[in-house]
Amino acid sequence: MDAEHKFGVRKLEILDKSKGFIELLQQLTICDSVSDKEFEERFQEISSYGDDHLICVIEDDRSGKIIATGSVFIEKKFLRNCGKVGHIEDVVVDSAARGMQLGKKIIEFLTDHAHSMGCYKVILDCSLENKAFYEKCGYKQKEVQMVKYFI
Amino acid sequence: MDAEHKFGVRKLEILDKSKGFIELLQQLTICDSVSDKEFEERFQEISSYGDDHLICVIEDDRSGKIIATGSVFIEKKFLRNCGKVGHIEDVVVDSAARGMQLGKKIIEFLTDHAHSMGCYKVILDCSLENKAFYEKCGYKQKEVQMVKYFI
Repeated sequence: MDAEHKFGVRKLEILDKSKGFIELLQQLTICDSVSDKEFEERFQEISSYGDDHLICVIEDDRSGKIIATGSVFIEKKFLRNCGKVGHIEDVVVDSAARGMQLGKKIIEFLTDHAHSMGCYKVILDCSLENKAFYEKCGYKQKEVQMVKYFI
Repeated sequence: MDAEHKFGVRKLEILDKSKGFIELLQQLTICDSVSDKEFEERFQEISSYGDDHLICVIEDDRSGKIIATGSVFIEKKFLRNCGKVGHIEDVVVDSAARGMQLGKKIIEFLTDHAHSMGCYKVILDCSLENKAFYEKCGYKQKEVQMVKYFI
């Protein structure tokens, strides 16, 4: 790919399913094929939250493929004087599109969104391996993530 | 306090502001006084998410005070076949009510809620100091939490 090419970040659109959005998520974790109906239903559910749950993508307009994505949702709290916190999730860059700072563009887009929504902070969980990347994006390690799986 | 007393977990109610709910949150982090109007507005905003954002409390029915709380919200994803993840936040037990397993009751209530909502996992962030407590609740450490503050 041409590193000089300009890659813009935009919101996820319903047509992105046909542009490899689900296949891109499969590079991150388990994600079996999703039917058009399932995709549309989930898309509408998430859209109903408006700016409180944003999924963004980068499309390679030469190939017509989605090559990077990430999401942020805005949690409303009582503490911090009825404050809000942005939670970044599901950040992935196509393995064939690494080294072009697309991950950084995604993180900046999501971080800026959380800021513009009035959040006092934005948080995310990552592997130790990816910690240095997020530090370059201005993040600092704070706590540890605990998980309980049901399946 | 009497350890034999039965403490039930229930959903946050709007009257809990007058029962020390905000003062309890102040034991967790910065939380200046919130006006009745601000409280009601935020309460309604969170209530509009229905079962997708649950705040629970334990009230000491002898003192009429809220002595423990925690929240969970349900994030809707595309990955994991349009899966859902529970995010537990803002767990706090009154410093005068420690040692009665109230924290464990709160975590079990929130974890069960996430499970009943169809989540494939539930996650939370905690300090290293509190890791052993969450391990007793069936959680395991997975990733690290990164944060960026705007204020």
